Amino acid sequence: MADDAEHRGDSVREEGSSCRDIKKEDVIYTQLKNGSLKLHELDKELPPLDAIRARREFIEKETGTLLENLGIFSIDIERVVKRNCENMIGTVQVPVGVAGPILVQGEYAQGSYYLPLATTEGALVASVNRGCSAITRAGGAQVRILHDGMTRAPVFAADSIVHAKQVADWVAAHYDELRAAAESTTSHGKMSDMVTYIAGTSVFVRIEFDTKDAMGMNMVTIASAKVAELIEQGTGARLVALSGNMCTDKKPAAINGILGRGRSVVAGIALSHDLIRKILKTDAKNLFEVNYRKNLVGSARAGSMGFNAQAANVVAAMFIACGQDAAHSIDGSTCITTVDLTDSGVYIAVTLPSLPIGTVGGGTGLETQQECLRILGVAGSGNPPGTNAKKLGEIVGAGVLAGEISLLSALAAQHLARAHQQLGRG
Amino acid sequence: MADDAEHRGDSVREEGSSCRDIKKEDVIYTQLKNGSLKLHELDKELPPLDAIRARREFIEKETGTLLENLGIFSIDIERVVKRNCENMIGTVQVPVGVAGPILVQGEYAQGSYYLPLATTEGALVASVNRGCSAITRAGGAQVRILHDGMTRAPVFAADSIVHAKQVADWVAAHYDELRAAAESTTSHGKMSDMVTYIAGTSVFVRIEFDTKDAMGMNMVTIASAKVAELIEQGTGARLVALSGNMCTDKKPAAINGILGRGRSVVAGIALSHDLIRKILKTDAKNLFEVNYRKNLVGSARAGSMGFNAQAANVVAAMFIACGQDAAHSIDGSTCITTVDLTDSGVYIAVTLPSLPIGTVGGGTGLETQQECLRILGVAGSGNPPGTNAKKLGEIVGAGVLAGEISLLSALAAQHLARAHQQLGRG
Amino acid sequence: MADDAEHRGDSVREEGSSCRDIKKEDVIYTQLKNGSLKLHELDKELPPLDAIRARREFIEKETGTLLENLGIFSIDIERVVKRNCENMIGTVQVPVGVAGPILVQGEYAQGSYYLPLATTEGALVASVNRGCSAITRAGGAQVRILHDGMTRAPVFAADSIVHAKQVADWVAAHYDELRAAAESTTSHGKMSDMVTYIAGTSVFVRIEFDTKDAMGMNMVTIASAKVAELIEQGTGARLVALSGNMCTDKKPAAINGILGRGRSVVAGIALSHDLIRKILKTDAKNLFEVNYRKNLVGSARAGSMGFNAQAANVVAAMFIACGQDAAHSIDGSTCITTVDLTDSGVYIAVTLPSLPIGTVGGGTGLETQQECLRILGVAGSGNPPGTNAKKLGEIVGAGVLAGEISLLSALAAQHLARAHQQLGRG
Amino acid sequence: MADDAEHRGDSVREEGSSCRDIKKEDVIYTQLKNGSLKLHELDKELPPLDAIRARREFIEKETGTLLENLGIFSIDIERVVKRNCENMIGTVQVPVGVAGPILVQGEYAQGSYYLPLATTEGALVASVNRGCSAITRAGGAQVRILHDGMTRAPVFAADSIVHAKQVADWVAAHYDELRAAAESTTSHGKMSDMVTYIAGTSVFVRIEFDTKDAMGMNMVTIASAKVAELIEQGTGARLVALSGNMCTDKKPAAINGILGRGRSVVAGIALSHDLIRKILKTDAKNLFEVNYRKNLVGSARAGSMGFNAQAANVVAAMFIACGQDAAHSIDGSTCITTVDLTDSGVYIAVTLPSLPIGTVGGGTGLETQQECLRILGVAGSGNPPGTNAKKLGEIVGAGVLAGEISLLSALAAQHLARAHQQLGRG
Repeated sequence: MADDAEHRGDSVREEGSSCRDIKKEDVIYTQLKNGSLKLHELDKELPPLDAIRARREFIEKETGTLLENLGIFSIDIERVVKRNCENMIGTVQVPVGVAGPILVQGEYAQGSYYLPLATTEGALVASVNRGCSAITRAGGAQVRILHDGMTRAPVFAADSIVHAKQVADWVAAHYDELRAAAESTTSHGKMSDMVTYIAGTSVFVRIEFDTKDAMGMNMVTIASAKVAELIEQGTGARLVALSGNMCTDKKPAAINGILGRGRSVVAGIALSHDLIRKILKTDAKNLFEVNYRKNLVGSARAGSMGFNAQAANVVAAMFIACGQDAAHSIDGSTCITTVDLTDSGVYIAVTLPSLPIGTVGGGTGLETQQECLRILGVAGSGNPPGTNAKKLGEIVGAGVLAGEISLLSALAAQHLARAHQQLGRG
Repeated sequence: MADDAEHRGDSVREEGSSCRDIKKEDVIYTQLKNGSLKLHELDKELPPLDAIRARREFIEKETGTLLENLGIFSIDIERVVKRNCENMIGTVQVPVGVAGPILVQGEYAQGSYYLPLATTEGALVASVNRGCSAITRAGGAQVRILHDGMTRAPVFAADSIVHAKQVADWVAAHYDELRAAAESTTSHGKMSDMVTYIAGTSVFVRIEFDTKDAMGMNMVTIASAKVAELIEQGTGARLVALSGNMCTDKKPAAINGILGRGRSVVAGIALSHDLIRKILKTDAKNLFEVNYRKNLVGSARAGSMGFNAQAANVVAAMFIACGQDAAHSIDGSTCITTVDLTDSGVYIAVTLPSLPIGTVGGGTGLETQQECLRILGVAGSGNPPGTNAKKLGEIVGAGVLAGEISLLSALAAQHLARAHQQLGRG
Repeated sequence: MADDAEHRGDSVREEGSSCRDIKKEDVIYTQLKNGSLKLHELDKELPPLDAIRARREFIEKETGTLLENLGIFSIDIERVVKRNCENMIGTVQVPVGVAGPILVQGEYAQGSYYLPLATTEGALVASVNRGCSAITRAGGAQVRILHDGMTRAPVFAADSIVHAKQVADWVAAHYDELRAAAESTTSHGKMSDMVTYIAGTSVFVRIEFDTKDAMGMNMVTIASAKVAELIEQGTGARLVALSGNMCTDKKPAAINGILGRGRSVVAGIALSHDLIRKILKTDAKNLFEVNYRKNLVGSARAGSMGFNAQAANVVAAMFIACGQDAAHSIDGSTCITTVDLTDSGVYIAVTLPSLPIGTVGGGTGLETQQECLRILGVAGSGNPPGTNAKKLGEIVGAGVLAGEISLLSALAAQHLARAHQQLGRG
Repeated sequence: MADDAEHRGDSVREEGSSCRDIKKEDVIYTQLKNGSLKLHELDKELPPLDAIRARREFIEKETGTLLENLGIFSIDIERVVKRNCENMIGTVQVPVGVAGPILVQGEYAQGSYYLPLATTEGALVASVNRGCSAITRAGGAQVRILHDGMTRAPVFAADSIVHAKQVADWVAAHYDELRAAAESTTSHGKMSDMVTYIAGTSVFVRIEFDTKDAMGMNMVTIASAKVAELIEQGTGARLVALSGNMCTDKKPAAINGILGRGRSVVAGIALSHDLIRKILKTDAKNLFEVNYRKNLVGSARAGSMGFNAQAANVVAAMFIACGQDAAHSIDGSTCITTVDLTDSGVYIAVTLPSLPIGTVGGGTGLETQQECLRILGVAGSGNPPGTNAKKLGEIVGAGVLAGEISLLSALAAQHLARAHQQLGRG
């Protein structure tokens, strides 16, 4: 077992550390208890694994719980505590199932893939799996990237609407200069657009970057800070917030749906009458009707921005498995699902305008998450840069398509309730 | 180490299993490869841990990867493969940090809590932690549950709008009978409402349940199936889909924002000028202005349904830590953040109308997730039933409030970019 | 011509009034010019017709224009200047065309109607006319009123979210008392619902009235003022505005779409293959496809709340003709148009959840507008009260259906551009 | 009176026409009654005025009504029946009041204006008038045009998402060629943008024109037809509808709010504490609070796209007075109202991103409507072309600002109910 020790983290340390300094532990607990030491200050006092354990044990005592499983993990903690999570006490283990293989006919993803899905929702992997099967038999999911650009929109306060208009004009007139400044903050990204929106005296400058293989929020935020500084200096407008919600990050927003954000992906496939009957146990007309009454009319009636069946399930499960920011499931699952009746069956498609996705940075470096990325062949930077993230975007698009095909046909066959009764949470 | 063996799962087995049947493994691989055995059929052929490993090894070979960390986990697999995840190959480890303590003044949650946050986004835990500190010093977050009810809305096809109206009338006339039928499917839940909506020939019957401590989607789905059957029989309308998207599940939707779904929570707190200056390093006016221009005006201008700064970050991180359905972050993060200027400082509040949340079922039984629930004192059923889920709802509400306070003040102090540069993804 | 004099208004006066007091006119002009007399004060100084002319002549001089046509009208000015329009200078003449007859199979409107449409948009009347023809030949538009209730939602400021919840609870506990108070302000209306919504410290009480034949905004506003007074007294919450935009009046809003406001109307009709081909010059499949790609997918992609083709055209034209508040076209035109493919052709329907409409009060008493109401047989109060407004709602619903059928089929036949070239604005 | 005869239309004719051919009238009635003559065919049989009267008399007989006032009008019928209204039976007279003078500090509108408002809603003109007064005393409304472009978005059906992407690429590659074709259809307009949006297999090409002084829907529709033809030929995609609802015309839509459509206008003004107290009878804090809780929080909570108090009232009333398409009030009233607290009082602004407005074409040529345009000095083409429409846009923006100031302060002073009781519909 020795050679695994580095990867086993705390669980492994625990066994071997006969040298644990019991006395120091008591001192630390006392200090935490009386407030002279803060939980986050433990990282300065102790090596990472010890800090995590000390923190966890403090929480155990404070809450009267036993947290033994949270302490069992194998990921490399040194980097995690610096880059991914403060005040760490351990990890939750989220089950990963695979769906597939799914044949993908993209421009970046070409071939057969197993989709890693991190979920605790019974029936989800099985559902996606059935969709993958249908897609693969039908010749593979067609996928295209429609747009690619991560955005950040600082908001400025102008003195008046006249001033606001002057700010917009100034930004337009200094586009090249601002772009140069923005790009000076990164060796990777390129600014692809900058548009100004005005609402009264509030001026929003939406800056868009090609962030290559990074999801890129951090990159564009830093660049925006630089741009914002110049705009303040050049116009006298006052920066109110580096993010003014016209970005829009982690909130459902029409602006993302219309203009795109992150990777804009569309995926589709023709399903024949024969395949619909044999694999999906329904027919073209029913499949179409479920989409029409549920995803289009029902969503319209509900005032929903989501015109789909379960895009969020696939997006969230793949995001968690692949080390994406889980909160990006909100914008990432923006999706319109369409089912066209054709002579030969149906053409079903999903349009995902705003997938914030990356293969470097964030949680992509954690060992378990990176292994999921490797299953898809997209870990790390692509060659040329950006191609891995685009490939991941295409695969997620295909995965969402699989989920939609499966759930729509399950509903069409009216066995959703039964499926839940067998596999669900009870 | 022996006594930990049961909990260490696959990682432990691996070391000890000198008895691994190499020959059988080869046979299985060959069968998987030639398609005579499906990945999901492994659960019938092998004990759970072996099935998981066989599946993982197959994926390793197929994709030319090494998936050693995915195979290290301690959760009880028997239950997981039956209830939470099909085609399992292991788990991803998601770092959990704690923010707090946060003082909560709810009707169900009263006291001091440490919030478990599962995230890979650097700076998030630190951000929430700062908010918790401000809240606790200010006397604790006030929280109230405004409404409680999980919904499912099957959609029916009527022959005409006249027929559609007849269906609506029939449902209203048979309310008691339908409620009895709905409640006959569960020993836990109670039907609290049933409303019919018409769009052309599509009839949506939105059934609402008090699901006690369960998130309840499954419960209400099964009940809806029963109700739908009776409606079909009684009216001749044709059930098109058990979920017609007026539920609305895992999609942003005004209907949830307006009527509520799951636990509707509001949390708020008064922050004094002094506290804002000392803890949050800004002032009331700036704090107010960031919320005004970003969360209200910016979101309005972007056509967003999210009038908040980072509700999704807290919701997603707590959902993953606590075994909630991560895809429910989409509806769960629907949030309006308000900052009122008062004589003594500000009153800041978050309104979360649709938190789908539970403390039993779903992923709440997984050991690591359950430990997080235990940290909050909400694992399992409450006494009386429903109080644990309500308590969790109140705590999540307080957590979102902490996140909002922190990010708004960070933006107000214009050091978001710096914070990212220090803690972020690089 | 003499007996018409009273109705011909200013135009008539002008000819006969040899006795016009030139000197007084000059004095008035001088006073208006130097600001010692305000335009609106003219109503106190002069008889209505003279005040209107004096005001118009002042505007003529100030702006160097000749406003002779504005001064030609026949409506009874005495009432108009008191109830409909301040600072009146005359009227604009809006052309009224008729579409129809259209056969309507409602619960209140049963029979054949000519629809008065006040418009300056060439091709509109012709378009609706074609739809009426199709509907009539197909056996008449089925129409039903789904809901009926005008709303007003005052907003209160609470001290905290705890206080906000107390206000909501107080309102619920005093429902009967508040209803009695609300109904004490009117001899016509009945309060049908009162629901409280909370957003942070803002408390919105949405009061709904059955306003019988009145559109009822004024009625429910006055009742709300009374209710608000009691809520302030009973709870200590502070009334901020009698209308808190959760009403929602004259703005597009999901709450109206979901819950309904004014008259909620649905209208539909089955069109046979034969009729679609002969009258509408297209086929079922094309008709369906235009609705699918334009009204459903296109509107979803645009982040639109309007899932229809031209509901606003019909609503606005009928509202102006029939003396409705034209600004109510905004909420009134909220509409989902659905086209279902059936064995025999299509079933097309329009769902209009929020038609603010009345047959008494507002502009319904003006002679020209009342004549339009008389064409429909709905002028004044119905017997029993409310039936005229409901009947008007049904007829407008049928009219919108006619407009949708016509435009969708025109688009399907791809002759929209040609139609515009022939009839349009050039 | 003789020299007025031409302008007095039907009302005049009626008295003088002793030569009316009674016999022919009877024949026509019989033919209309038995269906051998259609109402719209009357224009071929009779001179315009006679056709109008014959039609009206037929309606009178059919419906048992007397329609004498509808027949009294002075507008030039020859043009109206050709360009504005089919099947005409007369006109409705809509009262026009003036508000103002209002001082406007725009780039096109500079000076003092009287706003013509066509309305039957008591209190509206008085309300706007009060806002005008406040604005004028405060130094005049600042107004700017942010964007200018009318759009039309045909929708095409592609065979697959791959084909859809090819269509988008083809359009981008043939931009210059398509623009030339578009511009070949008009001697006035210039194509300013063309953007492609994809949703599954649906491809929307949003074409934007600088339509100079025309509102321009017709211009851009005709140009779109030409462009669509080329796209069909070049790509094999099938044109489904010349308008695919991503335009978006006469429906509330985020795309218009975000990207602008027609004239995008912003107007604002600083109001001092003194002025707020004296003219508006309230104070800065209350004015701010009403906007905050009603227009921002209330609208957010209601799922509304309208973040304003009564933009629609002013837009509809000015549109009807000035011969604009009344149904354009729907998109035209899209408005965010902001009230910023400042040291000296408040800065209040309205942002109207999508005012479809013109000074030539449509209903602008009708005599009464043209007189209203003349009051504003914007009748007909501007010099250079486009300046009149921009000027009108600025004035409407200032008018909306006046309406917002007035209603917000009325609500703040809590006398809305009283105002309604005095002036309202009763």
